Amino acid sequence: MKKNILIIPGDGIGQEVTTWGKQVLSRIAEKYNHEFVFDEAIMGHTAIEATGNPLPDETLEKAKASDAILFGAIGHAKYDNDPSAKVRPEQGLLKIRKELGLYANLRPILLFDELLDASSLKPEVLRGTDILFFRELTGDVYFGEKNRNEDNTFASDLMNYHRYEVERITRKAYDAARTRNKKLCSVDKANVLETSRLWREVVQEIAKEFPDVETEHMFIDNAAMQLVKNPKKFDVVLTANLFGDILTDEASQIAGSMGMLASASIGDGTGFFEPIHGSAHDIAGQNKANPLASILSAALMLDIAFGLQDEAKEVTNAVAETLKAGWRTGDIANADTASDKILGTEEMGAKVLEFL
Amino acid sequence: MKKNILIIPGDGIGQEVTTWGKQVLSRIAEKYNHEFVFDEAIMGHTAIEATGNPLPDETLEKAKASDAILFGAIGHAKYDNDPSAKVRPEQGLLKIRKELGLYANLRPILLFDELLDASSLKPEVLRGTDILFFRELTGDVYFGEKNRNEDNTFASDLMNYHRYEVERITRKAYDAARTRNKKLCSVDKANVLETSRLWREVVQEIAKEFPDVETEHMFIDNAAMQLVKNPKKFDVVLTANLFGDILTDEASQIAGSMGMLASASIGDGTGFFEPIHGSAHDIAGQNKANPLASILSAALMLDIAFGLQDEAKEVTNAVAETLKAGWRTGDIANADTASDKILGTEEMGAKVLEFL
Ligand SMILES: CC(C)[C@H](C(=O)O)[C@@H](O)C(=O)O
Ligand SMILES: CC(C)[C@H](C(=O)O)[C@@H](O)C(=O)O
Repeated sequence: MKKNILIIPGDGIGQEVTTWGKQVLSRIAEKYNHEFVFDEAIMGHTAIEATGNPLPDETLEKAKASDAILFGAIGHAKYDNDPSAKVRPEQGLLKIRKELGLYANLRPILLFDELLDASSLKPEVLRGTDILFFRELTGDVYFGEKNRNEDNTFASDLMNYHRYEVERITRKAYDAARTRNKKLCSVDKANVLETSRLWREVVQEIAKEFPDVETEHMFIDNAAMQLVKNPKKFDVVLTANLFGDILTDEASQIAGSMGMLASASIGDGTGFFEPIHGSAHDIAGQNKANPLASILSAALMLDIAFGLQDEAKEVTNAVAETLKAGWRTGDIANADTASDKILGTEEMGAKVLEFL
Repeated sequence: MKKNILIIPGDGIGQEVTTWGKQVLSRIAEKYNHEFVFDEAIMGHTAIEATGNPLPDETLEKAKASDAILFGAIGHAKYDNDPSAKVRPEQGLLKIRKELGLYANLRPILLFDELLDASSLKPEVLRGTDILFFRELTGDVYFGEKNRNEDNTFASDLMNYHRYEVERITRKAYDAARTRNKKLCSVDKANVLETSRLWREVVQEIAKEFPDVETEHMFIDNAAMQLVKNPKKFDVVLTANLFGDILTDEASQIAGSMGMLASASIGDGTGFFEPIHGSAHDIAGQNKANPLASILSAALMLDIAFGLQDEAKEVTNAVAETLKAGWRTGDIANADTASDKILGTEEMGAKVLEFL
């Protein structure tokens, strides 16, 4: 199989971790006789520094022309502390999501038995948890009109959804639920928001096409609570852009660390694969970041973008073997981890390659 | 001291639990020689059934005329499953918040040592946690203009904040931080939302008036994660209406159960005291609800509305004694709790009274 893969390292630790996602893809290509052709492009703070634009045209063109994209992370504290900055790294990420029509963001909460102790949740609460989040990615208050009045006394963002936007992701989520435990929980705030009431209406309608899937509706406040209280009760969770952003970061603690979670953004064209963690400038360039989320993002790419299930499985297994052998990065180590088992980004990436 | 207290039981378990908040207030009045005059009013589903209006004028008048309000809970599944319902119980709660100018919702996460094991979080993660949330309560996407187009293909809610709304709650939160551990974490999504950028600007400005308080800004997704990972790191958390709704429900798992958390809504006039839990119709009328959140709401009333710190302390102590003696309602029991120590609403309320 021949595929063109675009690597966008982005900002901060994005640079360090995507190296390992890429190396894993190369190794798989070698082993299974595929031809993966790599190209690279810039986005975010890195792109602003180089061109003034968080998503240069060249990056967008390369993205559209590729078969899949492996992305690192975005953001920089400089802009976070300057609320009046007009050009921001995140605009690059939001724009590429919109331009590529990446409306469905899949975030599997994959729990490795070896990491049960790395979580702040009790092992008995975690054991057996297996959640697949479907976060809508191109609508909601992320993309609605923004306003600020002239004397800076008022600001607004429009939260909004079109029916078709809710329909298409809902169908994708139900399709996935069918291949899993046949349970779908749709999260909204329909007791307060009109957007949520439209969301709930649409889900109720489409639910009728999937009578074999058990549907539940839950308010976001309750869901944020249940996710900590009893994560096992969830199978597929379907939700809007903002609520999905919050819930999936919260859910990262089920997997022990943000450093473990990969995501796939899909839609009508090229798929986009990225860790759910951020650019973490505080540890960037220090060989401390966990490369596993990028490696698992590469596995999602093999599975979802290329339909290479065996290859994907092999990558996930290599990660499991690495953990089983006791190797940890700092974020997933616990008090009992021997210090010589705690590795840097480079060493951890190399371990996974050994198991491949 | 003479005070007029309005009891609004509301819906579902609200009826059962406020009885106990009220009885605790009566006992305190007796013991300390205060005169608390009680009146009662309807709101929510109960009020819709009786009058067609979730907040009848009579209730609002009584509320305005009283010195403090003890509220139960609101909501009914009937409306939740009918996204097109025009009249909804929650409208009553939102309207009374707005009409009474209750812009600051204080939600203390009070951790009783006895309940360390009732949480899904590890005791070592929890121990020492003491958070006070300041949730803005009369702005945000809760009160912005809502729209639905005629053919039901589009819906929107306006998320918005005025500078003065952010200022007044920020000052209150900093004042409180000064009397505590002198740390304030403001939670927003300033990398995406204009509303959050205004929020952050205002907090940055006001922070200068409180140089003795350490200020941190955190994105909501990160905060939802950190709250599970390391709740101890927070002292005062300041946030907008929607984010506060989500974070405080999530934080209820730190206290072991939603059934333990009280809240105080304050502003320019009469204060409003209520559990953070909902109407829980699934267990309503079954003598199963935990009355402690309502009892702790009464304690907050004594403290915040009436300045009766000793009396408030006595109520909190009685709750602690009850827990220390091993008594539990179902929601805070764990696998090791002897079944004869698990009480119903009535019995649990009576135990607390015994300790008073
Ligand atoms: C960086 C930010 C714009 C982004 C988001 O909120 O979508 C990130 O938090 C994510 O979850 O991918
Ligand atoms: C019932 C609902 C409108 C309310 C809210 O979202 O404010 C509740 O969840 C709360 O937290 O008080």
